[in-house]
Amino acid sequence: MKNKINREVPEEIGSYKGLNPFAGSAAQNIIQNNNKLKEFDEVLDEINIQDGMTITFHHHFREGDILLSAVLDKLAERGVKDLVLAPSSLTNAHSESVIKHVKNGLIKKIHTSGLRGKLGEEISNGLMDEPVIVRSHGGRAGAIETGRLKIDAAFIAAPTADSAGNMCGSEGASACGALGYAAVDARHADKVIAFTDNLVEFPVNSISIPQRLVDYVVEVDQIGDPNKIAAGALRKTADTPPKNMLIAEKVAEIINGSRYFKNDFSLQTGSGTISLATIDLLKNLMDKKDIKGSFLQGGIAAGHVKLLEEGYFKTIFDTQTFDTAAVKSMKKNKNHIEMDAADYANPFNKGPRVNNLDFVILSALEIDLDFNVNVITGSDGVFRGASGGHSDTAFGSNVSIIVAPSIRGRIPTIKESVTTVITPGSDVDILVTERGICVNPARDDIREDIENNTSLEVIEIADLKEKVEKLTGKPKAIKFKDNIVGLIEYRDGTIIDVVREVK
Amino acid sequence: MKNKINREVPEEIGSYKGLNPFAGSAAQNIIQNNNKLKEFDEVLDEINIQDGMTITFHHHFREGDILLSAVLDKLAERGVKDLVLAPSSLTNAHSESVIKHVKNGLIKKIHTSGLRGKLGEEISNGLMDEPVIVRSHGGRAGAIETGRLKIDAAFIAAPTADSAGNMCGSEGASACGALGYAAVDARHADKVIAFTDNLVEFPVNSISIPQRLVDYVVEVDQIGDPNKIAAGALRKTADTPPKNMLIAEKVAEIINGSRYFKNDFSLQTGSGTISLATIDLLKNLMDKKDIKGSFLQGGIAAGHVKLLEEGYFKTIFDTQTFDTAAVKSMKKNKNHIEMDAADYANPFNKGPRVNNLDFVILSALEIDLDFNVNVITGSDGVFRGASGGHSDTAFGSNVSIIVAPSIRGRIPTIKESVTTVITPGSDVDILVTERGICVNPARDDIREDIENNTSLEVIEIADLKEKVEKLTGKPKAIKFKDNIVGLIEYRDGTIIDVVREVK
Repeated sequence: MKNKINREVPEEIGSYKGLNPFAGSAAQNIIQNNNKLKEFDEVLDEINIQDGMTITFHHHFREGDILLSAVLDKLAERGVKDLVLAPSSLTNAHSESVIKHVKNGLIKKIHTSGLRGKLGEEISNGLMDEPVIVRSHGGRAGAIETGRLKIDAAFIAAPTADSAGNMCGSEGASACGALGYAAVDARHADKVIAFTDNLVEFPVNSISIPQRLVDYVVEVDQIGDPNKIAAGALRKTADTPPKNMLIAEKVAEIINGSRYFKNDFSLQTGSGTISLATIDLLKNLMDKKDIKGSFLQGGIAAGHVKLLEEGYFKTIFDTQTFDTAAVKSMKKNKNHIEMDAADYANPFNKGPRVNNLDFVILSALEIDLDFNVNVITGSDGVFRGASGGHSDTAFGSNVSIIVAPSIRGRIPTIKESVTTVITPGSDVDILVTERGICVNPARDDIREDIENNTSLEVIEIADLKEKVEKLTGKPKAIKFKDNIVGLIEYRDGTIIDVVREVK
Repeated sequence: MKNKINREVPEEIGSYKGLNPFAGSAAQNIIQNNNKLKEFDEVLDEINIQDGMTITFHHHFREGDILLSAVLDKLAERGVKDLVLAPSSLTNAHSESVIKHVKNGLIKKIHTSGLRGKLGEEISNGLMDEPVIVRSHGGRAGAIETGRLKIDAAFIAAPTADSAGNMCGSEGASACGALGYAAVDARHADKVIAFTDNLVEFPVNSISIPQRLVDYVVEVDQIGDPNKIAAGALRKTADTPPKNMLIAEKVAEIINGSRYFKNDFSLQTGSGTISLATIDLLKNLMDKKDIKGSFLQGGIAAGHVKLLEEGYFKTIFDTQTFDTAAVKSMKKNKNHIEMDAADYANPFNKGPRVNNLDFVILSALEIDLDFNVNVITGSDGVFRGASGGHSDTAFGSNVSIIVAPSIRGRIPTIKESVTTVITPGSDVDILVTERGICVNPARDDIREDIENNTSLEVIEIADLKEKVEKLTGKPKAIKFKDNIVGLIEYRDGTIIDVVREVK
C-alpha cells in the first residue's frame, strides 16, 4: 500500500506482520507543545477525577504541607466521592482536612505510611468504613511499581518547576530537598500534576522529576512551608535527655565493636535525638580506627551533612530532607544524591539500597519477646506513628539496632506481645535501652562481637522485661472492639497485622 | 487466619479481597544480597538466552566498541540461534562480527538506527532473510517504552560500576560520557548485565543507571576504546572545507534573522564541521544582540561545552558524548546534564525535550522537491548512515535547518524524490547549500524572516535542483531488485519507507 507520502510500503513482510503505513508526523496525537501551564480548575476539568479514583501526594513538607488539603477542598467542591487517598504519609497538617473529607464522603479509603494526632485518634475510633492500609516506604514503592496500587492522579508540590514539567526539590523559596516519594508516583501515575510557587525558565537547573512524566504545571502562591518540615521530627543534640545520651553511647560502643565497623561501612539513622547523638559519637570512633564510611541514607539532616562534608562518609542517599542544611547540601554537593523511594526500598526490584546497609538505628514504641516492633500504635492502641522505612531497613541491613527508653510515662516498652507489628522480630537484631541490651537469639555473631569487643553486657529480653516490670508493674491490656480499622501490610504486600477500633 | 507470626489476619475485609497473610520477610524470593558480581559465563548460564530472543547494546563507544562483538562470539559458542539484535546503533566496529554471526545463524533480525561500511553493503546486497528495521533514537525509545520492542537481555558497557550495579558513564579510564541510550534499555529489559573495566567500591559517585534496574555486573579487562568515539564523527573547525564554512555562515545569518533567536532560545546541532562552525559564528551574534541561550542538546562535543562554560547557554542535555572535553564537562559541571533517549525524544511520553527546541541543524545525504530527507542510503542506494535523532528533532523544533553541499562527488544532493525517506518533508523547514537557500512553502514565517532580516536570497527548491543539474547533468536512477532489505520506521512506529536490495 501507499503511505501518506506516497511510498509503497508492505503490510507484512517475513515475520513482521500488521505493519502500519506512515500517516503524517503528528498522526497519533503525539504531544507537540511542551507548555503544560494551566490553571488548577482547567486541570481538574481535563483530568476528570471520577468517584472512586486513587489520588496521591508526597509528605516531604511534613507539618508544613498545604497542597493536600487545598486539593481535597477543590475536589469536594466538585462533588467527587469515594476517593482512595494514598499519600506517601499523613502528618498533623492533614488531620483536620482529611477528617472533614472522610465525613463528607470525598474520601472512602486511605493508604498511608503514618497516621498521627487527631486523625489517628478518629480513625482508631472508627471514623472510616474501610480499614486504612499502612505501608512502609518500600512497600508503597513496591505496590506502585508492581501495579498493585494504581494511581489515577499524583499531585506534586514542586519547589521549582518549568513550563514543561521538570521539577526540582532543592531550589526556590519553598525548597524541601529530595522529592523521593513523589518521584515514584510520577513514574507510574496516569496523570501527574506539578504545583509550584517558583516557576522558572526552561529548563530547571537540577531535575528531581523529568518532564516526560508530567502532564500539567499549576502556578500557586505557596506550595508549603519548609520551616515546618523539621517540626516534630528534628531535634538538636544539645537537647538530648540524659537517658537518650546513655543509649546513644551504648549504640556507638556496639557499632565500634561490630565486625561490620570497617572501611566502607554504611549507616542509616532516623532523625531522633538518639540517632543524632550516636552520629556525633561515631566520628571519634572512626577517627580512632582510621576508617571512612561509604554511604549514609534515609531522612537526611544537618548531622549527616556534616559527616559528608568532613569526609567521614563519601555519599549521602537522600529520600527525604529534614532541614535547611541538608537542602543546601543537596543543592551544591554532587555526593549528596537525591534517591527515589524505589531505589531506596522497593523489595520487588533488582536490589534496593536498603540491602547495602550495614547498620540501621531504628526507634520503637513497643518491642516484644519475639523482637517484633511496633512503631504505629501507642500504649492506648491508637494510631500515632508511621511505618516509614522501618521494616525495609531492618530487613536489608546487616545489623538492625532498635533504640528505645525502657519506660515511657510509666509504661514499659517491652511487651509479651506488641499491640501492632510493623517489623517482624526475625529482622530485628539488637535492642538497646538505658537499662540493658538484648540480642536476637538468631544473631550469635552479633552477641559474640558485643561480648568480645565491648564492655557491655547482653541480657535476655525476657529478663529485661521482668526487670522493668518490677519498677512499673504489669501494664493493663488495651481493650479493643472487633472492628478492624487498619491493615498493616508488610513490605511485600502481605498482611502482617491488623489494628482494631479502641474501646 | 493466622499468619507466620501468629497474628490473626483476614482474607478479606470490606472491599479488600484476596489478602495474603505474612509468610516471613524473605518469603517471596525477594533479593537480599546486592552483590551482583559474576563471571560472564555464569551470567550466560543464569539468564539462559534462548533462540529467538532479543538482545540490545548501546553505541556510545561508536568505532571503539568492543562489547557487542565479544558477546556475540560468546553466544555463538553456546549454539544460540535466530537472535534479534537491537542495539541503539551499529558502527564500522561491528561490521565484521555482525556479518559473521548473521551468516552462522546467530542473528536472524537486526533493529538499529544506523548501518554503515561493510555491513551496510552486505545488507543492501541481500545478506539477511528478514529486513532490517531502522528506527530513530526517539522511535527506539518509544518502541521500548510502549512494549513494542521487548528486550530479553541488555548488555551495557559501563565505564564505572559498583557491585550492586550502579553505573556511571563519565568516570574511569574508559569514560564515554552519557549512557543515554542504555538507560532506556535498563528500565525495560528483562535482564540487565553491566560490563565494566572500572569496578569501584559501592556506591559509584555519579549514577547514570541505578542498581534497582541491574541484574549482573561482569568485570572485564576493557569495555571499549574511548579514543575511537570521535572517529568518523568529530572534526575540527580548522579543517572545515571552505564550502562548508560558507554554508555555516548562511545558517548563522538565518538564525540571527529568525524570530526565535532571542533570550532563552535553544539549539541542537550535529557534530559535523558545518554545525561546529555555525556554533562559533553564533557566539558573536549572541554577543551583538546581547542574548543568552537556554539549552543545547543531542550529541555533545567540545564546542558545546565551551558555550556552556562561557555562559552562552545555561544547560546542556547530553544523550551521547562525542569527545573527552565533553566527558570531563559532564563529570564536573552540574549544568551538563546526562539525558536518556526517552527524555530526549520518545514521541509517546508526556513531552520529550525535542519539543522544546527552537533550532536544529541537521545533515542530509539527499533531499527532494517535497523536502523529504534521506540520511540512511547513499547515492548508490546502499546503507551508509543512521536515522539518529533526525526525524525526532525535525518534528519537535520550531525551525529545522538542513545543511548539505549541493553536490557530492559530482552527484546532486537535491532529487526529484529521495531514495529513502527518513524525515518527512512536512517537518523540514529550510535547506541551506553553498549554492542557495530553500524554504518549505509551508513556512511563510521563516521565509519572511529571511527576506526581511537577512541579506540572503531564498530560491525555490526546484530551481536550485535545476541550477545544480546544469553543472552535473541528471544523475542516473539507481537500480534495485524487488527484495526489501530494510523497513524504515517513522518515530511513531509506522512505516515511512523501505530499502530494497541493490542490483
